[in-house]
Amino acid sequence: MIKEVSIRKYISQETRETVDWVAEERPLTIALNGVEIVTLLCSPSHLDELAVGYVLGEGLVPRGAELEIRLDEERGIVDISTGSANLVNLQAWGKRYVTSGCGKGTSFYQLNDIRQQESVSILMKVKMKEILSSMTMLQKHSQVFLKTGGVHSAALQIPDHFIFREDVGRHNAVDKLFGYYTLNKLNAPEKILYLSGRISSEIIIKARRMGVPVIVSRSAPTSLAIQLAEEVGITLVGFTRGTKANVYSHYTRIE
Amino acid sequence: MIKEVSIRKYISQETRETVDWVAEERPLTIALNGVEIVTLLCSPSHLDELAVGYVLGEGLVPRGAELEIRLDEERGIVDISTGSANLVNLQAWGKRYVTSGCGKGTSFYQLNDIRQQESVSILMKVKMKEILSSMTMLQKHSQVFLKTGGVHSAALQIPDHFIFREDVGRHNAVDKLFGYYTLNKLNAPEKILYLSGRISSEIIIKARRMGVPVIVSRSAPTSLAIQLAEEVGITLVGFTRGTKANVYSHYTRIE
Repeated sequence: MIKEVSIRKYISQETRETVDWVAEERPLTIALNGVEIVTLLCSPSHLDELAVGYVLGEGLVPRGAELEIRLDEERGIVDISTGSANLVNLQAWGKRYVTSGCGKGTSFYQLNDIRQQESVSILMKVKMKEILSSMTMLQKHSQVFLKTGGVHSAALQIPDHFIFREDVGRHNAVDKLFGYYTLNKLNAPEKILYLSGRISSEIIIKARRMGVPVIVSRSAPTSLAIQLAEEVGITLVGFTRGTKANVYSHYTRIE
Repeated sequence: MIKEVSIRKYISQETRETVDWVAEERPLTIALNGVEIVTLLCSPSHLDELAVGYVLGEGLVPRGAELEIRLDEERGIVDISTGSANLVNLQAWGKRYVTSGCGKGTSFYQLNDIRQQESVSILMKVKMKEILSSMTMLQKHSQVFLKTGGVHSAALQIPDHFIFREDVGRHNAVDKLFGYYTLNKLNAPEKILYLSGRISSEIIIKARRMGVPVIVSRSAPTSLAIQLAEEVGITLVGFTRGTKANVYSHYTRIE
């Protein structure tokens, strides 16, 4: 996930040629039952998880579907088979696409999809002290970030697991976590999702699809993320730094 | 671009209810000659610029085309007319879409498109001292960031202009700048693009389409961004902070 490059370094009017580490970015093409659906730019690790998390998080395949994954790491292609074509919701995705945010957006359709679902009703409780120390752990784990400054990190905390992923894409890191969760057939309603990066509405949509009750970020949420979290029953914690944090929605899960 | 929200604040084990400022995020649907093509999530300012910058930066419409813009701010819709349907490259975009990174990616097609173009050959020179002071200016301008922490900032420097934009989306801030440049019929080969955020390959693709010879960021570039900048003739400067900076490609434009 790291590459060495030659650079020219400027420090206080002095110049020197040196080498530095940068985050690797590579394309990964995802096919669903043999049909190419997307090429993501990502950090080349855990590509099977990324592909599975992506198709689930985008609502292309329902949770619980049996998936078969064939990864060709060298060519950067992963093919996911669902067994039955009925399990693939490409039509809705195609429709979404028409007004969907290629490159950065999410469509009205996705927003409406998610608002029509039941809200996350898990009554879990989590101590702010635990949240603060997990965020510190996330930062300590961030080896690629510490070396390159070029990736986002995310972690999924469930009983007995603290799973950690890094990626050049903020959403990819989240997709990898949900791919891990799915591929390992885990089932834990009490999930906490930790993020280094900002929380936009798209993260809430993905988290809702995965049934995450609590999201914690080191950074800022947007207005739409807060509004959506409120609507779909997610507790949103932002600016989690040192001994401080802000809670933006569904306070009652935080003790 | 800023909204007030009610939050619960935790500071060193004390809790209080208060209000805070967050960056506003809203959907904007872009139509081209009456056909909806995309809904972006963005900061609601300079929406006409965003729409124009988007269709140019994605290669949907060629530079130099006469554009007519109708913006319905309340409904969040902007319609761009090109006069002639021949000027819209929706087919190539549709093809790209099949393997394109909805939400975060860029396809092989886009990478190949851009590699087939001539490289940026402008022989401009810029002093590192000027780069460092412009980056400081970018940070001072970042009012929405200072208040919310939830946006990226970008600036376009051309002779007699230092144009500044902020947006919840890293790419949107760049699109707005190119929208401004296009709508004001500016023509300056010697452009410098300043960014607060990371540089991924998609930013290089957009910048290449706009003919930008120099990109300067406060943050890290990815390996693919560096490789692409090298190939298409763009000077890439990263980690521009205080008196320091790293130059990753085409050093000769920096004095």
